[in-house]
Amino acid sequence: MAPVRVVVIGAGFGGLSAARALERPGVEVVVIDSNNFHTFQPLLYQVATAGLDADDICFPVRAHLRKRQRTRFVLGSVTAIDLAGSTVTIDGRRLERFDHLVVAAGSVSSTFGVEGVAEHTFPLKTVTDALALRTHLLSRFERAATATAGEVDLGIAVIGGGPTGVEMAGGLRELIDHVLRKDYPELDLSQVPITLIEAADRVLGPFDPSLSEHASAALRARRITVQLGVGVASVEPGAVLLADGRRVPAGTIVWATGVAGNPVGSLLGVQLGRGNRIPVEADLSLAGHPNVFAIGDIALPPGTPLPQVAQPAIQGGVHVARQIHALIDGRATAPFVYKDKGSMATIGRNHAVAELPNGMKFHGFIGWLMWLALHLVELMGFRNRANVLVNWAWNYLTYDRGSRLLLPSRVEPTTER
Amino acid sequence: MAPVRVVVIGAGFGGLSAARALERPGVEVVVIDSNNFHTFQPLLYQVATAGLDADDICFPVRAHLRKRQRTRFVLGSVTAIDLAGSTVTIDGRRLERFDHLVVAAGSVSSTFGVEGVAEHTFPLKTVTDALALRTHLLSRFERAATATAGEVDLGIAVIGGGPTGVEMAGGLRELIDHVLRKDYPELDLSQVPITLIEAADRVLGPFDPSLSEHASAALRARRITVQLGVGVASVEPGAVLLADGRRVPAGTIVWATGVAGNPVGSLLGVQLGRGNRIPVEADLSLAGHPNVFAIGDIALPPGTPLPQVAQPAIQGGVHVARQIHALIDGRATAPFVYKDKGSMATIGRNHAVAELPNGMKFHGFIGWLMWLALHLVELMGFRNRANVLVNWAWNYLTYDRGSRLLLPSRVEPTTER
Repeated sequence: MAPVRVVVIGAGFGGLSAARALERPGVEVVVIDSNNFHTFQPLLYQVATAGLDADDICFPVRAHLRKRQRTRFVLGSVTAIDLAGSTVTIDGRRLERFDHLVVAAGSVSSTFGVEGVAEHTFPLKTVTDALALRTHLLSRFERAATATAGEVDLGIAVIGGGPTGVEMAGGLRELIDHVLRKDYPELDLSQVPITLIEAADRVLGPFDPSLSEHASAALRARRITVQLGVGVASVEPGAVLLADGRRVPAGTIVWATGVAGNPVGSLLGVQLGRGNRIPVEADLSLAGHPNVFAIGDIALPPGTPLPQVAQPAIQGGVHVARQIHALIDGRATAPFVYKDKGSMATIGRNHAVAELPNGMKFHGFIGWLMWLALHLVELMGFRNRANVLVNWAWNYLTYDRGSRLLLPSRVEPTTER
Repeated sequence: MAPVRVVVIGAGFGGLSAARALERPGVEVVVIDSNNFHTFQPLLYQVATAGLDADDICFPVRAHLRKRQRTRFVLGSVTAIDLAGSTVTIDGRRLERFDHLVVAAGSVSSTFGVEGVAEHTFPLKTVTDALALRTHLLSRFERAATATAGEVDLGIAVIGGGPTGVEMAGGLRELIDHVLRKDYPELDLSQVPITLIEAADRVLGPFDPSLSEHASAALRARRITVQLGVGVASVEPGAVLLADGRRVPAGTIVWATGVAGNPVGSLLGVQLGRGNRIPVEADLSLAGHPNVFAIGDIALPPGTPLPQVAQPAIQGGVHVARQIHALIDGRATAPFVYKDKGSMATIGRNHAVAELPNGMKFHGFIGWLMWLALHLVELMGFRNRANVLVNWAWNYLTYDRGSRLLLPSRVEPTTER
């Protein structure tokens, strides 16, 4: 009997989790991704603030799948999905036939239609985003070092008070206070303004309000202006315009809010839901297509929307693998039940907030230790873990950050050499 | 009394060595480089073969100079040197006045005028070169994985049998044998041809002939074709044409030979010597300009040409700092005496050749341990050293190499955001 073929689109938390759980005799898995590496997105802000290298939080997919003999990796972009013909097209030419399909393409940065966001802000969704932001930031300090005082606006605005925005704002202050102030003795960096802008009336919306308060207080203690309860009307070169008419000048503007389902979802030919996500049934399958599943950021299951973080994707991956095994064995599928494992966000050195599903809350140093331990354990691959540990230990002991290269030119593959 | 101003062009081995040694009360040093980091060039081949990250062998110049209160760093390219007016122009606009000038801009890759080299080969002189080569190499294997057998030529030709070429060829075989063969089970990589092409009749020309023999034998044992005694006539897409009419097909061609003095040398307005180097007096000063010095790869002192490696640059940096101090103190300058500390080159895992100035020769495992220890000690900055150690230990124990990211897009600074 020919093996059952499962195509998994995406090598993020969801896709790799599904691929791992799918492995069994008689099942052939093809993982497709447009990058040859998995990105540990929760630490992107550390790459952007020069605390970690890109290589520390990215892991080659082939190395990860190497031990799995029934799993293949294909590098490329999915350009068409034919549900009737059961094929996926890669880069407009290569066809992959499937018996079952798992769409785990994640989310992409979205401007929410706010004017100027695409042109004048830095998103923080991919490792390339993080490197571009790091390069821009460091370049501005270099320019300021040889410019007339005040000519280069070093101020930073971070739009979005979720975990990414909070961690980014805190990380930026540490970079400036502990590294850049020493690197640029010719500049007065004691008052570089950092503003965190959040439309809701508190940061870290999904957390308990007491932790939001702790986080806000910790940010303010780090001289970060926390601007709550006001939306962004538009962004122009060098400034954020708020809905109430105020203007926040900033030479660097980070867009740490706004994600939408990866455009791959539109290839399914179904009506997409909120945030361009794929509406799925309780078992995470597509209505009318019991062999097609969507998981993670790109999926919109019925009921309360799940947070667009790693855990729902990882758990969804395991779930759909089990459902596909059930279908192969002729059993019925079961609904997906998300198990909340808690949330955490770090504000910086010695300070994080954490909330467990049983309602226990932590903040300050103990929260930070929990955050540190969890992220180390979750980082894939020993080598990355060891490198991250070296970098973090170094940063902690010396307040230094090593990853400050301004690489001058593109490193894209050439087409023919 | 106003401090004496010394401008150092270049933050390589020579420039940083000079800057460190120049530090003393009454002396103000300005270091200029077009990158914000120092590159540990002897390990570039490890970045190209995915053994190390770019961040492991690059070190921010500002971090290095941070403790030196009398030293400033300026990021930019030198576009003019006015010896009469005693100024250096940076990026066409910023002027730096000097009392003493140290030109330590190193060397750049040179095609030697061989047709096709610029278009169809990869140089290995900068970290950007190394990343571009790594990206090209890994992309070819990805393309081969989804192409018809034989459609993508995975063969590699390395032109130049000096230490760089030898280390590159050996590193490539290890990457293919120990990593890529596992990453690409769909490809038969047992016979990927690697050819090392050297115009002289032996590899590692500056070494004792017995070590050249050892290196050649070690390369051949790794199934690398060592092509000696024949020059390269030209390079075309996908092949190297040898002077004797033979054609070496290769999908990847590395140009590991041919360096010339950095074009900055031509800004001095003097007649340049062999390989575009700046002819200097015995004390490394420019004839008729006792306050201008050139050191390292860009300098051409009288007598036997010095090897274009780290040691002459490092020693030259210390020497010119002492001569500048002598001039300030009204003492006479002394000629530069190069102290040979020996040479080494690694062919791969457990194998290197080393030659000490007293004539002692080592090869095999003991040579490799010496190579390893020396490079670790010489790598600048504890953090880099710790990271390199982690990566090397990991590579050694697992035969794996972690740095295999194909970063999809440019990470250049944006001009205005």
